Amino acid sequence: MTIAVGLLTFPNVQQLDLTAPYEVFASVPGARVHLLWKDLAPVTASTGLVLSPTTALADCPVLDVLCVPGGSGVNALMTDVAVLEFLRFQAGRARFVTSVCTGALLLGAAGLLKGRRATTHWMALDLLAAFGAVPEARRVVRDGALITAGGVTAGMDFGLAVVAELCGRDQAEAVQLALEYAPAPPFAAGTPGTAPPQVVAVVRDRLGASRRAREKIIATLRV
Amino acid sequence: MTIAVGLLTFPNVQQLDLTAPYEVFASVPGARVHLLWKDLAPVTASTGLVLSPTTALADCPVLDVLCVPGGSGVNALMTDVAVLEFLRFQAGRARFVTSVCTGALLLGAAGLLKGRRATTHWMALDLLAAFGAVPEARRVVRDGALITAGGVTAGMDFGLAVVAELCGRDQAEAVQLALEYAPAPPFAAGTPGTAPPQVVAVVRDRLGASRRAREKIIATLRV
Repeated sequence: MTIAVGLLTFPNVQQLDLTAPYEVFASVPGARVHLLWKDLAPVTASTGLVLSPTTALADCPVLDVLCVPGGSGVNALMTDVAVLEFLRFQAGRARFVTSVCTGALLLGAAGLLKGRRATTHWMALDLLAAFGAVPEARRVVRDGALITAGGVTAGMDFGLAVVAELCGRDQAEAVQLALEYAPAPPFAAGTPGTAPPQVVAVVRDRLGASRRAREKIIATLRV
Repeated sequence: MTIAVGLLTFPNVQQLDLTAPYEVFASVPGARVHLLWKDLAPVTASTGLVLSPTTALADCPVLDVLCVPGGSGVNALMTDVAVLEFLRFQAGRARFVTSVCTGALLLGAAGLLKGRRATTHWMALDLLAAFGAVPEARRVVRDGALITAGGVTAGMDFGLAVVAELCGRDQAEAVQLALEYAPAPPFAAGTPGTAPPQVVAVVRDRLGASRRAREKIIATLRV
């Protein structure tokens, strides 16, 4: 079997939100991974990496997995009618509608989270309620055909879970082994509940401007 | 303080070997991350992602961290005199000389692993001995200024460990929290010792051709 995956690839995407699931999906033999954007001109991710879209939104085939990564660029897209319409249209055809990190806010702005359980980056989790979603502080949340992942690196765990759904557990485990995904973080600071308080304060401050910008945009939306 | 990191970016690199540490390093305020290659023409990674080098090898500044990711493209570079000379020259100036996954084979081909403890992807670990290295089956191995990581996703744990060395533990923990790196793999198949035997057999077969090609190349080298 082959699988078709489409990852939205936009200016100021958080590149690891995109590249980690990309590597998981692309490691499945026969998989076709599309980097989807309005046109094929390169876009620059939030940390500077340049990404080259492969498939224009207008040329997007029916997907097994539609995946929206997050990043500061999500803010501009929450009011981008063309992107929101694209997401609604593809969501009606795809087998799984998914997001990583703050990509969930874009699914929310497209009206795709109403009444659904969902997750996102911990700094944005409470914002999901504005879209009618039921926020859950978990690494990966599945609600029927909707699968959402937590912040950035949750995209690895998410990708493997989706491959297991699509291709079976053996295939997901083969990808996990090929990518030697037996994580061993040197510190336990991956969540606000386990990180030292002074570290949480630093990150809240570092991500604060983006959070406040999101609050303002969401207040103007009618979802 | 600012840090300068250089990641070798070559045709058929395993993109996640590169993009995971990239995101870790680039998340440190003030960091400058260079994607280094012979010229600035885009290169295609082994799973199809197109990457754009930012800095030609001839223009590489003195680095805090020189990092060589792995991938099938390593095979061609093990006999590429210009690349090997670049690595030896920069290794003599950089604060840390590092690799992720099979990037260690390239450090070995450059003569930089003689008598040193090092690691790489589990499918290539025993090959390090041919370069005079002492292979260790660990996620991240530090031997003085040489830091090597295991397969692909070990680049996350590696990146955080290096940031802690360069900028202190608080900074590394802040990056970990911002990237929500509290991994929760859905399966325990990340190492050959924990994956089901039939999964190990599938992956050994899938990666077998690349392994055999490497054995042949290494047999011709005089390191």
